[in-house]
Amino acid sequence: MSTNAENPAGTAPANRELVLTRILNASPEKVFRCWTEPELMKQWFCPRPWTTPVIEVDLRVGGGNFIVMRGPDGTEFPNRGVYLEIVPGKKLVFTDANTKGWEPSEKPFFTGILTFEDAGNGKTKYTARAVHWTVADRESHEKMGFHEGWGKCAEQLEEVASKL
Amino acid sequence: MSTNAENPAGTAPANRELVLTRILNASPEKVFRCWTEPELMKQWFCPRPWTTPVIEVDLRVGGGNFIVMRGPDGTEFPNRGVYLEIVPGKKLVFTDANTKGWEPSEKPFFTGILTFEDAGNGKTKYTARAVHWTVADRESHEKMGFHEGWGKCAEQLEEVASKL
Repeated sequence: MSTNAENPAGTAPANRELVLTRILNASPEKVFRCWTEPELMKQWFCPRPWTTPVIEVDLRVGGGNFIVMRGPDGTEFPNRGVYLEIVPGKKLVFTDANTKGWEPSEKPFFTGILTFEDAGNGKTKYTARAVHWTVADRESHEKMGFHEGWGKCAEQLEEVASKL
Repeated sequence: MSTNAENPAGTAPANRELVLTRILNASPEKVFRCWTEPELMKQWFCPRPWTTPVIEVDLRVGGGNFIVMRGPDGTEFPNRGVYLEIVPGKKLVFTDANTKGWEPSEKPFFTGILTFEDAGNGKTKYTARAVHWTVADRESHEKMGFHEGWGKCAEQLEEVASKL
């Protein structure tokens, strides 16, 4: 029995959130595939020259994922998460707060809420929200280069999706 | 992109977990109902003389719940959470890390993993696991009286379920 209170002023969700929106030249179904099929994900998930040598996806609610990002100097960053909501071609929600089997992770950092809306003419309105538990983590994510990094990745994602 | 590493030694899941197991004299279906129907929940959710004046349940994955616990002196403790996994009559998983719409809560405290196994003769093997993000939170939950509180509640739950 926890004692979470309502959000006090100053930590309203908007202050803990980062959002990227793009119109991508590929259908929602294709963009969704690029977010859920490991072989496609590996082609765009990190801003080049970073790579993602390992991507494991258990695409079901409560299924885990495991993603290793590798920097240009060879340093690897492993991340584990779990899928919270899956609406094929429309929505994907995941978090690093829990991992497979709902085990709590070492540190809840953010929940990713992705929507893929039909923008007509085979295009997708792609919205990626990263909602954090603390304002400090939102700031840290922003300083890590969220906007540039996710922006660059959205371009790479479009490149992969538009060729499917 | 977070940088969660593997759990270092000392914070293995077992050290962050509290578990209660009971054989209850009611079927898994009835015990599950008592965990998911607000009017039934109100009858057992807090160890008496505590009460639960407000229980709202949106029983779907990603649906929120809102539970207000009231102490004997009238102090109220509001809690919000979200359902992660629902297997009618068998399993229920929820967390206070996120709330409805997957918004991160103010403070992730624990994830509850409940299983309701058929123990024969109309009885249920009821297992309630509370898995925390930190050892400190597990200890704090234990000091709040997890074992006595959840144990007493399990008795109250059995009382309500066995009359259905």
